[in-house]
Amino acid sequence: MRYAVLGTGIVGRTLAAKLDSLGHDVVIGTRDPAATLARTETTPTGVGPYAAWQEEHPRVRLSTFAEAAAHADCLVNATSGKASIDALTAADAAHLDGKVLLDVANPLDFSRGFPPGLDPVDSDSLGEQIQRAFPGLRVVKTLNTMNCLVMVDPGRVAGEHHVFLSGDDAEAKKTARELLHSFGWPESGVLDLGGIETARGTEMLLPIWLRLMGALGHTDFNFHIQGAGGPGAWGGH
Amino acid sequence: MRYAVLGTGIVGRTLAAKLDSLGHDVVIGTRDPAATLARTETTPTGVGPYAAWQEEHPRVRLSTFAEAAAHADCLVNATSGKASIDALTAADAAHLDGKVLLDVANPLDFSRGFPPGLDPVDSDSLGEQIQRAFPGLRVVKTLNTMNCLVMVDPGRVAGEHHVFLSGDDAEAKKTARELLHSFGWPESGVLDLGGIETARGTEMLLPIWLRLMGALGHTDFNFHIQGAGGPGAWGGH
Repeated sequence: MRYAVLGTGIVGRTLAAKLDSLGHDVVIGTRDPAATLARTETTPTGVGPYAAWQEEHPRVRLSTFAEAAAHADCLVNATSGKASIDALTAADAAHLDGKVLLDVANPLDFSRGFPPGLDPVDSDSLGEQIQRAFPGLRVVKTLNTMNCLVMVDPGRVAGEHHVFLSGDDAEAKKTARELLHSFGWPESGVLDLGGIETARGTEMLLPIWLRLMGALGHTDFNFHIQGAGGPGAWGGH
Repeated sequence: MRYAVLGTGIVGRTLAAKLDSLGHDVVIGTRDPAATLARTETTPTGVGPYAAWQEEHPRVRLSTFAEAAAHADCLVNATSGKASIDALTAADAAHLDGKVLLDVANPLDFSRGFPPGLDPVDSDSLGEQIQRAFPGLRVVKTLNTMNCLVMVDPGRVAGEHHVFLSGDDAEAKKTARELLHSFGWPESGVLDLGGIETARGTEMLLPIWLRLMGALGHTDFNFHIQGAGGPGAWGGH
């Protein structure tokens, strides 16, 4: 498949590298490719410059949001939540109509410092905002409830755990489910919550996720809904 | 121990019955005991009149919030979130100072219909509001992330799952932990998130809890943080 991953941060890079390793044709979209490639700084959280990562992943191309979206059969929103609507607007609705968008972003709000809050929250969600703003997109909110290394390698967390699906388009959720299986998520690890409105629930996991990270001192954990399936539903364990 | 359970709904009754069965001296607090006992209706969710429940639990007494608080060594807030501050105000701060309060309530906001939202949310929590309003109380937010039948009988959900603790007083959290053990929660099933501020995280689990209830069609489920402890941490399984 032809994928456009929107966003050049650690989440976008991790997903792009995984998709590339699975043989997909991957373009990363950014606002200004020349500016992205010119950056040399490492972020405070230790994420190095994009150009160095690009050298290690020569098959993955970098282009504008619009070029990436035009190229793709399926898109992944890995921009920061605050930038997502602008990124998709730049991608151009004409390049989005009818396509599946996996929305893995969270609308983190750092205006009150760390840990961030959410905006929107409770009465709305980023997933719903994107679906309303781009009604031709088939939005599936997924993978936004865990660290990006767990997204593409669920085996990092021993035992059963869940990835959620929220979306209004059953076919798009089927596409998402197949991609998740290719990442190593078993059938019983994928929990379909219902329509895109249920993205409110998964985005609101972020506050406890951040506090769990603080309490546990690592990010190799994930939510498991105990009682969601029969015993032994996860891969026969 | 002498317990005051504030709130006569299904959560308060379930916790009071469990505490009574464990040999504790339990008083349920309500605004107007005569009015509570006079009610004859069954709620739309099937909760029968308090008086009928009272007959089945003759050792548990019903009294005003203030009398219940005066009686107790330890309090449980099982009122509706919107009524909690008023209930504790009626209980009288003089009867609260120095005591442990287990806050199992959630600030559900039904103003936009079902499923309810939360108020406060994200930038504050009910647990923090209570701690601020009654600085002499030693508030521990706990048990608010599951159905009340699971609270007092964690074995209803097969396998490992978690109950969270949030609070600023280490001794009060120890008291809470001991009570949870007496309910059947093993040591490894109790996850201390930190200060009362972390109640924001657990209260914000309610939106996905409500949507999971819808997707799964039952309430015998709970959150398990996979990766929070070593394998087999839960009771040797």
